[in-house]
Amino acid sequence: TAWKGAPQIRQGDWSFKPKGRMQFDTVAVAAPDSIPDKGLGLATEVRRIRLGGEGSMPGNFGYKLEVELSDNKVDLVDSYISWQSGPFGIRLGNQNQFQSLDELIGDTSGSVMERAAFTDAFNFERRLGLAAEWQKGPWLVQGGLFTDDVNALSASNGDENNSYGVDGRLVFAPKLGDTQLHFGLSGHWRDLNSTGEAGVRYRQRPYSHVTDTRFLDTGTFKASSETHYGLEFAAVRGRWHVAAETHWLTAGRIGGADPTFFGGYAEVGYYLTPGDTRAYKGGIFDRSAPKNPVGQGGMGSWQLTLRYDYLDLNDRDIRGGTQNGYIAGLVWSPINYLRFNLNYAHLDYRDAVLYAGSRNDYGVNVVGFRAELDY
Amino acid sequence: TAWKGAPQIRQGDWSFKPKGRMQFDTVAVAAPDSIPDKGLGLATEVRRIRLGGEGSMPGNFGYKLEVELSDNKVDLVDSYISWQSGPFGIRLGNQNQFQSLDELIGDTSGSVMERAAFTDAFNFERRLGLAAEWQKGPWLVQGGLFTDDVNALSASNGDENNSYGVDGRLVFAPKLGDTQLHFGLSGHWRDLNSTGEAGVRYRQRPYSHVTDTRFLDTGTFKASSETHYGLEFAAVRGRWHVAAETHWLTAGRIGGADPTFFGGYAEVGYYLTPGDTRAYKGGIFDRSAPKNPVGQGGMGSWQLTLRYDYLDLNDRDIRGGTQNGYIAGLVWSPINYLRFNLNYAHLDYRDAVLYAGSRNDYGVNVVGFRAELDY
Amino acid sequence: TAWKGAPQIRQGDWSFKPKGRMQFDTVAVAAPDSIPDKGLGLATEVRRIRLGGEGSMPGNFGYKLEVELSDNKVDLVDSYISWQSGPFGIRLGNQNQFQSLDELIGDTSGSVMERAAFTDAFNFERRLGLAAEWQKGPWLVQGGLFTDDVNALSASNGDENNSYGVDGRLVFAPKLGDTQLHFGLSGHWRDLNSTGEAGVRYRQRPYSHVTDTRFLDTGTFKASSETHYGLEFAAVRGRWHVAAETHWLTAGRIGGADPTFFGGYAEVGYYLTPGDTRAYKGGIFDRSAPKNPVGQGGMGSWQLTLRYDYLDLNDRDIRGGTQNGYIAGLVWSPINYLRFNLNYAHLDYRDAVLYAGSRNDYGVNVVGFRAELDY
Repeated sequence: TAWKGAPQIRQGDWSFKPKGRMQFDTVAVAAPDSIPDKGLGLATEVRRIRLGGEGSMPGNFGYKLEVELSDNKVDLVDSYISWQSGPFGIRLGNQNQFQSLDELIGDTSGSVMERAAFTDAFNFERRLGLAAEWQKGPWLVQGGLFTDDVNALSASNGDENNSYGVDGRLVFAPKLGDTQLHFGLSGHWRDLNSTGEAGVRYRQRPYSHVTDTRFLDTGTFKASSETHYGLEFAAVRGRWHVAAETHWLTAGRIGGADPTFFGGYAEVGYYLTPGDTRAYKGGIFDRSAPKNPVGQGGMGSWQLTLRYDYLDLNDRDIRGGTQNGYIAGLVWSPINYLRFNLNYAHLDYRDAVLYAGSRNDYGVNVVGFRAELDY
Repeated sequence: TAWKGAPQIRQGDWSFKPKGRMQFDTVAVAAPDSIPDKGLGLATEVRRIRLGGEGSMPGNFGYKLEVELSDNKVDLVDSYISWQSGPFGIRLGNQNQFQSLDELIGDTSGSVMERAAFTDAFNFERRLGLAAEWQKGPWLVQGGLFTDDVNALSASNGDENNSYGVDGRLVFAPKLGDTQLHFGLSGHWRDLNSTGEAGVRYRQRPYSHVTDTRFLDTGTFKASSETHYGLEFAAVRGRWHVAAETHWLTAGRIGGADPTFFGGYAEVGYYLTPGDTRAYKGGIFDRSAPKNPVGQGGMGSWQLTLRYDYLDLNDRDIRGGTQNGYIAGLVWSPINYLRFNLNYAHLDYRDAVLYAGSRNDYGVNVVGFRAELDY
Repeated sequence: TAWKGAPQIRQGDWSFKPKGRMQFDTVAVAAPDSIPDKGLGLATEVRRIRLGGEGSMPGNFGYKLEVELSDNKVDLVDSYISWQSGPFGIRLGNQNQFQSLDELIGDTSGSVMERAAFTDAFNFERRLGLAAEWQKGPWLVQGGLFTDDVNALSASNGDENNSYGVDGRLVFAPKLGDTQLHFGLSGHWRDLNSTGEAGVRYRQRPYSHVTDTRFLDTGTFKASSETHYGLEFAAVRGRWHVAAETHWLTAGRIGGADPTFFGGYAEVGYYLTPGDTRAYKGGIFDRSAPKNPVGQGGMGSWQLTLRYDYLDLNDRDIRGGTQNGYIAGLVWSPINYLRFNLNYAHLDYRDAVLYAGSRNDYGVNVVGFRAELDY
């Protein structure tokens, strides 16, 4: 039995580990007073609750099975059967489509509370599919064929969903002395098929998930396809790390010119506590265990991150608005698997879809706190 | 590995235990024939199904994570991150607000199938919050700041919920010779804020949960706050125990005088099986392991309880009705963690909101059986 | 600790094992082009996701607790408290009603992807009840008293459900030399009571669950009762097995003559891999561990099955249609607990409720693939 937040029980080629996750949020969203929205202000929320298990089996097979209770419904998160042979791996089931570095990083391993605006705006989500991965030395190649979200596919939601897409990602992650570098690019194409008739919509909350209000919103329009690609860069050296991404999404509009929306972020982070560093593994940032945890004479790890988060939902005749976001995050991890996340975000909007009086360019301030545990 | 219904796996400061619960009810509710309600009569129900886990971690941290499948939806029950240092403990997450002794006792540790009428009528439920506890010798002090139920808070239920409240409880539990005494008082105040516009409603089923019919019901009225407090007394000596509570709730009505509703109960219980006693721990009755379980030559524990259960939802101009309830319960626990609960309840209603012909004072009889397992 | 897909942790008379299940389907349904239904064609689906646990306890008690995420909702599957003494066993909770051999076989132990058409058409499902079983030598007697599906019983679905039924099954399973024989008969009666007012409906998808389209459908009609009975035969010898069932259901119609619907199947299966045989245990086919699994020099087990699947929903004045189905299944089980299932089905319909132009007799072809893991 090894211990990874919870016991990993082993016997021969078999292993099993229970999985769980809890995130409790308290957030205040302050917008101009002239916007009458009761959904803003101070609010609390259970952001994510997860229960599941993962294991390995003989013959190089493995699996992960995890359900999420979030936003008052039950959803499936990472749930797949896997097979690994040396550098080559396959996963069949519900999983991410290598959308972007920020999206692939676990939500309890991120440097700030919420992911980059473009990852929500562009509707990144897990989908049912078959994916393959090849990893050797500094190289990582990932690709897969996906259909849709498992709830969207379920018969009770209508059985007419025949959307599908192909996704790929290439990562080059050499180590230069003590510096871990990360260069990535990903490309994605999706045929919306019958789901395109219902239309697509790109929008984003003001950083936090506790409110349903979206200042940026393209509205719904019919589309036949989505094409998007992104560039990734990151580096880690001792207590410092930097990361940056850019992502372009083009919607193949039905009855109109194809708009291209854009998002990206750049961040720099620093551990205030000596000896701590941001873990990097398998083409993403991984969970970072504090060097000197509470209970062993230490005070855990303290990490400070500054992030600039940009989103542009204006293109062609569509005015979804733009965001210049400035985020500061402080993460205290007293012991591995447990974190407390304090964030401040200032969001500068232009062409916002909600008017503050006669203005649609204004700033919104957000202060958020999250307690989170995962095992 | 220790065993507590399920294995508690340990390694250093880490521990993990899976959790589960099942309750299957069969209940007959007999009301006067002149009340035409198909929801009465004989019925069966899965009362509660729970799945989860709990554990301890280095640095005095711990957690509990449990979801409940009940009434055809998934809900979150005790799910929090905890920290304990000597007599002082903190819990952050979804939890009870020290509402009353009867509410805090686990539903598989109670002396009868369902809790006192006032605990349902006054809408006691777990809420998201931060709570602290200090326990030393016979003293226990508990207090916390809470918002609302996690489903009520979720963005999909509207994001305008900004209710919050403060709750506290004080327990003095000295041991006099062989007699464990319990004196408790709790106070609660809640600002309903925007949720008060939707209104509050106090009502109660006829003892059992299998029916949706409520003979007592204040109807919905707008309120800005709720203030309530309660007194608790209990004593355990050998095979005997007594318990009694009173609880007053005042709704700060909008556009009308503030009504105060009242509920309370008194019970006496006796173990028919020698050597058994009702376990008391941490300010509540705990799970009681039978002294001579089945499988080890014994017949488990048999406990008989008589309870009087009063509820008064009449005040000011509101006529929600009153209940004088007389409940007899027989609990057979063949082994620890497993119980079979047979109950009879006679409920005398006055000012009931459902008329039996021209009368609104009459009696309802309930016979219920529950099989329950928790680990 | 024993290992059964997941660890079974033991201590004295106690044991606990986590349970999980995943099934991912990819299916193409090809009907005549003249039927305009977007729900046909190629589709993917998460067929079943399950999470739970099972254990044994002192005093011969045991339990199983499993929830299912399927079709976008959470449901309860096998969840009961059990007691076993020698040949005699009792189960209280949510469980099957000994409906038929094919229904009782675990969905990850079947020889083809989906069960016989009559098991769905006749609405077989788990229900809340009390069941007893007596097993000695080649004889197995099963019987129980059941109410309804736990979601149908929940108060939120209305509390007026007072349906109930009695169910029984008798199995004689002698071993003749190396041949395991199975003879079974089951009988079922159900008083629909107030649920009969809402009506009954018998219908069936074209083999696969990915589509909601039903070519066979009696429509809804009021009924007061259901009576059904079935005959079962099976045999296993080395790599071969055969199985066949017939089942008749009579609906006690309100305001009309009672129709009797009929279904049945016959199949023959053969393991292409030497040494493999279909496991038989407790009156049903059980999970079959491959003799030479992948990872130990083998290629797992490969099983080929041909099945004829008949359904007749025509009787009296009701024209629900008939199906002659021809199914071929290939199951690869590289290691125990993991299977890949490839199926082809040709369904000949007569009196189908969906017209292909002016015709209601035509053929539908289905090709399906399932990856499935259970532990």
